[in-house]
Amino acid sequence: MEEKVFIFGHQNPDTDSICSSLVEEYLGHKNGWHSVEARRLGNVNEETQYVLDYLGIEAPALLEEVEEGQGVILIDHNEFNQSVKGIEKAKIWAVTDHHRIANIETGDPLYYTAKPYGCTSTILFEEFKRLGHTIEKKEAILMASAIISDTLLLKSPTTTDYDRKALEELAKIAEIDANEYGLAMLKAGTNLDKFTAEQLICLDAKMLNTKGTKYVIAQVNTVSIEDVLARQEELEKAILAEIEQKGLGMFILAITDILASNSEILVLGDKAEAVEKSFGKKLENHHMFLEGVVSRKKQLLPLIDKNV
Amino acid sequence: MEEKVFIFGHQNPDTDSICSSLVEEYLGHKNGWHSVEARRLGNVNEETQYVLDYLGIEAPALLEEVEEGQGVILIDHNEFNQSVKGIEKAKIWAVTDHHRIANIETGDPLYYTAKPYGCTSTILFEEFKRLGHTIEKKEAILMASAIISDTLLLKSPTTTDYDRKALEELAKIAEIDANEYGLAMLKAGTNLDKFTAEQLICLDAKMLNTKGTKYVIAQVNTVSIEDVLARQEELEKAILAEIEQKGLGMFILAITDILASNSEILVLGDKAEAVEKSFGKKLENHHMFLEGVVSRKKQLLPLIDKNV
Repeated sequence: MEEKVFIFGHQNPDTDSICSSLVEEYLGHKNGWHSVEARRLGNVNEETQYVLDYLGIEAPALLEEVEEGQGVILIDHNEFNQSVKGIEKAKIWAVTDHHRIANIETGDPLYYTAKPYGCTSTILFEEFKRLGHTIEKKEAILMASAIISDTLLLKSPTTTDYDRKALEELAKIAEIDANEYGLAMLKAGTNLDKFTAEQLICLDAKMLNTKGTKYVIAQVNTVSIEDVLARQEELEKAILAEIEQKGLGMFILAITDILASNSEILVLGDKAEAVEKSFGKKLENHHMFLEGVVSRKKQLLPLIDKNV
Repeated sequence: MEEKVFIFGHQNPDTDSICSSLVEEYLGHKNGWHSVEARRLGNVNEETQYVLDYLGIEAPALLEEVEEGQGVILIDHNEFNQSVKGIEKAKIWAVTDHHRIANIETGDPLYYTAKPYGCTSTILFEEFKRLGHTIEKKEAILMASAIISDTLLLKSPTTTDYDRKALEELAKIAEIDANEYGLAMLKAGTNLDKFTAEQLICLDAKMLNTKGTKYVIAQVNTVSIEDVLARQEELEKAILAEIEQKGLGMFILAITDILASNSEILVLGDKAEAVEKSFGKKLENHHMFLEGVVSRKKQLLPLIDKNV
């Protein structure tokens, strides 16, 4: 029996991590790699659940840890601190990603396909083209959903012409109106009321480790920043507990208005002034408004990481 | 005026590093990236010079250091400790490589194309196909030479079917007999008499850094291991000086017989027993014979690195 190779995105999976893992599995099967299987490293969020429900398919199974020598394919991430427990001892066969490279070390050569696009699925879309495979409707919906999610309906500054072109073609195959479908999907992900503060700050949290400082940039999407900020007190309590427990220098929660394309960031921790330095303005009552900022990867991380 | 983006392979460049850098430049121009220019990080070895002379072209210009923000494309390597001085502050646009990933950290997303093939040029060969560009004779000779060099005429265990297929097609375009041309090229690189011991141990030396131990695996090709071992005394003196100067835990010199496909390795340093553990045999007078071993990447590095 062939050994399974697990395909998964990052911890606190977003729609790209889940959908692109599934698509990479389908693509693997088309290429004759029958032993590959998608997994997920955490709970499926409501936005992603909307996509799975739309298609009537199940989420990949949860993967909590890998054993030494386990074959894996990393999707939508490469940094070990964002990956599965045990990754250091795994056999990494391939990486498909659209982030910076850091904190990764392999013993052997591997397939690594990264492009500075807005979404992993846009890279997969090009892989279908390159390999001459027809894109099926289900695959098109998964990839279109990932692109809509990562680029906030092509409005994020991370969006490239490759993402626009891919979404246009995928929407046709998927037989969806990208705007209508996309807005419904994004809105499904903004229902934050049902989450405790502890859950909310971990929904899409990325752990960084720079110059010896561990810190987190978490992000939630909303249609009303005000509604989320109304919970500031309990959010701060949850964030302080997280800082204490994980020995963080700083925790940044970006509350992003997906309709107006702005963010409010809530920042706690000893290193919080790195954020003030990054944006040349002061935190007031631990938060600040950032006009036009929607992308963690492009508008938050590089600036803040330089000042940590 | 557009800013130049430099394309270069690793320190102590081999034929793949030089030839693939040139081919990546040509490919860049075909794609409309006119600002890219090949560079080299060290002297051209005699094997590579044979290729350049065959084509009547000049080697890329020497690059000693890059300034902050300099745009670069890394070929045939990704580890910063094998790259140019100042790489930490450079802007890495792309990487094309066939090695493991380690000791690389970028601030931004990038193009990264790695495949576990025997040679970088085989990846470039596939890029020509993917992009629909015709391969010109000069390009074919450069890529064929790189493949012959890295795979020792397809005899190294690093050789994949992709390399075989690429070399077959490239030899046709290049109008060469791969065996005849390849043997002449490889032999041109085995003239070691003109090098001092200090030069010889640095011709193709790779610096590793594992669990806090810095060590070097250098390799020279020959048609007579005996001839090289006759210089053991002066080689050891040069190696000990290198260990002292760079604070190395170990220095391994692989002397590889390209005709018989075997290697003798000469090992000095405090950590030398890592090598004995790796191959389950003792060094005698600081060296041991390894039957069938020709590939540093596949047959030396992974085994030794585990025992460091």
